[in-house]
Amino acid sequence: MGEAKKAKAQIDLGPLPELIGYVLRRAQLAAFQDFFAAFAAFDIRPAQFSVLTVIERNPGLTQSQVAAALGIKRTNFVGLLDTLESRGLAERRPAVRDRRSYALHLTAKGAALMRKLKPVLKAHESRMVARVGADGRERLVALLRAVAEGTPKASKAARSRRAGSAAT
Amino acid sequence: MGEAKKAKAQIDLGPLPELIGYVLRRAQLAAFQDFFAAFAAFDIRPAQFSVLTVIERNPGLTQSQVAAALGIKRTNFVGLLDTLESRGLAERRPAVRDRRSYALHLTAKGAALMRKLKPVLKAHESRMVARVGADGRERLVALLRAVAEGTPKASKAARSRRAGSAAT
Repeated sequence: MGEAKKAKAQIDLGPLPELIGYVLRRAQLAAFQDFFAAFAAFDIRPAQFSVLTVIERNPGLTQSQVAAALGIKRTNFVGLLDTLESRGLAERRPAVRDRRSYALHLTAKGAALMRKLKPVLKAHESRMVARVGADGRERLVALLRAVAEGTPKASKAARSRRAGSAAT
Repeated sequence: MGEAKKAKAQIDLGPLPELIGYVLRRAQLAAFQDFFAAFAAFDIRPAQFSVLTVIERNPGLTQSQVAAALGIKRTNFVGLLDTLESRGLAERRPAVRDRRSYALHLTAKGAALMRKLKPVLKAHESRMVARVGADGRERLVALLRAVAEGTPKASKAARSRRAGSAAT
């Protein structure tokens, strides 16, 4: 292990440590590692937690709505929901307006699990915030949203300028 | 599409948009999406690019060393390298010191590909930087490193204080 660590320090990663995508991926994996460890006892993975959260807060949504809100591909979403359903945590009910689609709901067991997970989530998030500080957290979330949104900053500024001149 | 967008805006994501792990994942997927599109013509995915970069910069490393440097699990790494080798981009040669392990090298074809990819990478990174601005990029990378490192900020500060008081 000592030798592996030494070797690691001497390895030239070239441009990687400065690339936004690379550093994002390393940070995301580190955050998920903490999540996995914290939620392992409940056998809940990050995407499953997100889906349960959206169903809990918005009972009756269709599969497409939940998948779109979370940016999960439809094919992945179906498998994910199958698992939650077979574990008795969520269920598909025929939608009232459109009998061809399903409305998603938590089961009583799913709702009970979500209550149990709240302190686990809180502790996980506290550990994440501890890594960057409270101020760092705010800045980080804002920057990450800008990356996720994908709108170039320059054109946002240009849009505000246009909006400003239109208002005058 | 208009209706899907409207519905999306009304969906309550609860605590998700404030969770570091969730926002990290959304940003990482967005960054990778840009990478996929840019590198699709070369059939190169982010992890493959990282491995080729490390082999290019450090010819002769073992599989374990490259995998450890990039934080890739050994099982995933073997498949990844098999693909690069079958495409004639990288090769395993018996290591000089330890005949049981392999030293990794780019082939001439792999080296030529890396030269072709440099402007593609540069353009991809420019689009990422455009989303947060040059200052934002620096702050983002520093914050992401802190998340990836996983050391609580408080204990870092405590360490500096201890180091400071030891020096006085």
